[in-house]
Amino acid sequence: MNNRLLVRGARQMLTLRGPAFPRRGAQLRDLSILENGAMLIEDGVITHVGPARRVENLAAARNARELDASGRVVMPGFVDSHTHLIHGPARLDDYEARLQGRSYAEIAKAGGGIRFTMRAVGGTSAKRLTAQARGHLGTMARYGTTTLEAKSGYGADDATELRLLRIAKALNDAPLTIVPTFLGAHSTPPAFDGDPDGYIHHQIQSLLPCVASAGLTRFADAYCDSGAFTVAQVRRYLSAATGHGLQAKIHASQFAEIGAVALALEFEAVSADHLEAIGAAQVEALARSNTIATLLPGSVFHLGLSRYAPARGLIDAGAAVAIATDFNPGTSPSCSMQMAISLACAQMRMTPAEAIVAATINGAHAIGLAGECGSLEAAKYGDFLVLNVSDYREMPYSFGLNHVALTVKRGEVIYCEKDDPLI
Amino acid sequence: MNNRLLVRGARQMLTLRGPAFPRRGAQLRDLSILENGAMLIEDGVITHVGPARRVENLAAARNARELDASGRVVMPGFVDSHTHLIHGPARLDDYEARLQGRSYAEIAKAGGGIRFTMRAVGGTSAKRLTAQARGHLGTMARYGTTTLEAKSGYGADDATELRLLRIAKALNDAPLTIVPTFLGAHSTPPAFDGDPDGYIHHQIQSLLPCVASAGLTRFADAYCDSGAFTVAQVRRYLSAATGHGLQAKIHASQFAEIGAVALALEFEAVSADHLEAIGAAQVEALARSNTIATLLPGSVFHLGLSRYAPARGLIDAGAAVAIATDFNPGTSPSCSMQMAISLACAQMRMTPAEAIVAATINGAHAIGLAGECGSLEAAKYGDFLVLNVSDYREMPYSFGLNHVALTVKRGEVIYCEKDDPLI
Repeated sequence: MNNRLLVRGARQMLTLRGPAFPRRGAQLRDLSILENGAMLIEDGVITHVGPARRVENLAAARNARELDASGRVVMPGFVDSHTHLIHGPARLDDYEARLQGRSYAEIAKAGGGIRFTMRAVGGTSAKRLTAQARGHLGTMARYGTTTLEAKSGYGADDATELRLLRIAKALNDAPLTIVPTFLGAHSTPPAFDGDPDGYIHHQIQSLLPCVASAGLTRFADAYCDSGAFTVAQVRRYLSAATGHGLQAKIHASQFAEIGAVALALEFEAVSADHLEAIGAAQVEALARSNTIATLLPGSVFHLGLSRYAPARGLIDAGAAVAIATDFNPGTSPSCSMQMAISLACAQMRMTPAEAIVAATINGAHAIGLAGECGSLEAAKYGDFLVLNVSDYREMPYSFGLNHVALTVKRGEVIYCEKDDPLI
Repeated sequence: MNNRLLVRGARQMLTLRGPAFPRRGAQLRDLSILENGAMLIEDGVITHVGPARRVENLAAARNARELDASGRVVMPGFVDSHTHLIHGPARLDDYEARLQGRSYAEIAKAGGGIRFTMRAVGGTSAKRLTAQARGHLGTMARYGTTTLEAKSGYGADDATELRLLRIAKALNDAPLTIVPTFLGAHSTPPAFDGDPDGYIHHQIQSLLPCVASAGLTRFADAYCDSGAFTVAQVRRYLSAATGHGLQAKIHASQFAEIGAVALALEFEAVSADHLEAIGAAQVEALARSNTIATLLPGSVFHLGLSRYAPARGLIDAGAAVAIATDFNPGTSPSCSMQMAISLACAQMRMTPAEAIVAATINGAHAIGLAGECGSLEAAKYGDFLVLNVSDYREMPYSFGLNHVALTVKRGEVIYCEKDDPLI
């Protein structure tokens, strides 16, 4: 059997083709739907996408295997550009306590909150953390994610942070593509209680150089918000990080706008994530920048809050919007990009097309992989989905369901719904 | 092979056992979790639920087949007590237009809205409507629903309304249990444009006697709200319906409180559904009644609204709360009860236990089937689920996913996740 795969018979093939690196204005890409198209994948890489007859003739001449999408939708695999993948056990007690009206301070005092996760991650072997993460990756594959980012940030000490990055990197054989991000300024650990400046200083002196020289990540992320790190602290951290050649990412303005967006733009951050609390000035600034506005509606939903990020304003102003799951045990315990897309539509008034662009090509931009995934174009990897719908809009419309029939990564089937007769 | 099935090995078996007909105060039932329990099902009916050793000994003596839940959660199948199951095609154009900012009036003028569905249902053969509904029932079974209600109400004429009820009744071989409800006062059809009184008069004179005498349903439902039927109109309709021996249900106070809850109690309705717009007086009145307060968070979510029904107030006051999907193509195109439960928790602050009670035994009360389903108790049908979690709280927590490994109806497996080694 050769390594050529022809994909044909889709009622809609969402290619999302467009200019090579349209960071600025990436939201302007549309779905570029082929209604009678086909795609040829050779050795895991897309070599031809176009009108069915032409691609099918090529494929026949090269003796490719055939995948008949049978009138369904074919689209790029999801790119989940913001996750806290490796996080130990679920926080079910916290969840129930919060629903019963307990405050985060009460929950933290009772041994819950992010410090529960820090303790759990610190006390769990790399082997066990890896096995837990593999379980989540299996779920992600079933729900259509083929590429994701995975942040550190739950390590209470240097060794644990390095371990989380190494696990994330090693999981690249998962077979999903995983981009590790160093979230060195997530939450002050117990050893630096009451001394966030000291913690930032430590990160700059000790851990950042180590992370950068080990080649474990391309990105340094920080949580800049009220109740988290200040603009001054994050500026020091990102100055050091970018000095080491890392690209900036920022958890910005989730609860309050304290200047995190301006800081993101000051460092030409690849993405500014959350943005629930931004106003018109930040919307305009993001629209004029090359920074991807990454929105995380899952955490707003799960926390039962009502203020979502202003997706409509951002898109209308010309900003490039990505959406991601924010998968984590405290505020967004769902790793389904389909759910994130339904939330983006129902709660943020994005159209299904905008949400799909945000969940694929724009997510790829947000983790520096737009050259290799996020759309069905020649020279990109053959990462795609077959959905059990004949109109892509049905995916967010019928919310809370899994519409994925088949997930394909670099030309290989990694998830196939029961009894699917496709292959 | 005999017809005996032993279910064992569950980390948590949620029995929801309780007094036989606790209509009043039904919310007070808890999950009654067995942590080392087992259940014996004989000829589709539960005969024993209790401590593992005792039930296992019985089962061994009777040579029962064995289902090992392998440390997972076993619970009753969901009872979806409010659906518009038979509704023809999805309304994707309406959905997209609404997200683009179009009003319902504009959408209706462009040929969408409920009249689109009325036309579609009227112009579709019973065979095709049945096939579409079977597709939805298959999805429901995958997501854990074993019993549901299905309303008419999309028929623009008597013949179509009767056809919808007959289809719902005939689908009882699906193999789900389906309870048809006559929604004779849903929306004024074109033939009675501008004359809702005339339509109600027609229903009372012509269709209601026919529906009642044909034995197609036990329930008559009406939509009593601003923009729908008035209290006076619904009172006339329900007087006639109850006179024919039907039990009342009401779509009450979805958008405005115009007296629909008081009307529901006047007719001792089995359920009052929606309730987003009720105030303290209605909460108290429901709590003092035997009427189930059926909440439908899916439609609030899908419409992007922020006002959910006051679940917390209702439960705290002592009302019996059910939750259901409201599955329909306009306002709630999801048939996942798991999603409804996640919404109930995240958006309405119900605890996972309260939401599960609401989605099973209280749903059964809302359609008059609490004697045969909704809990795992002797003499009820063997309708149950095995979930892929070891703590039931993880089901709503990890929202947007399908946690069902196995759906069993009257002792027979009707859905089994791929490669599940259970049976």
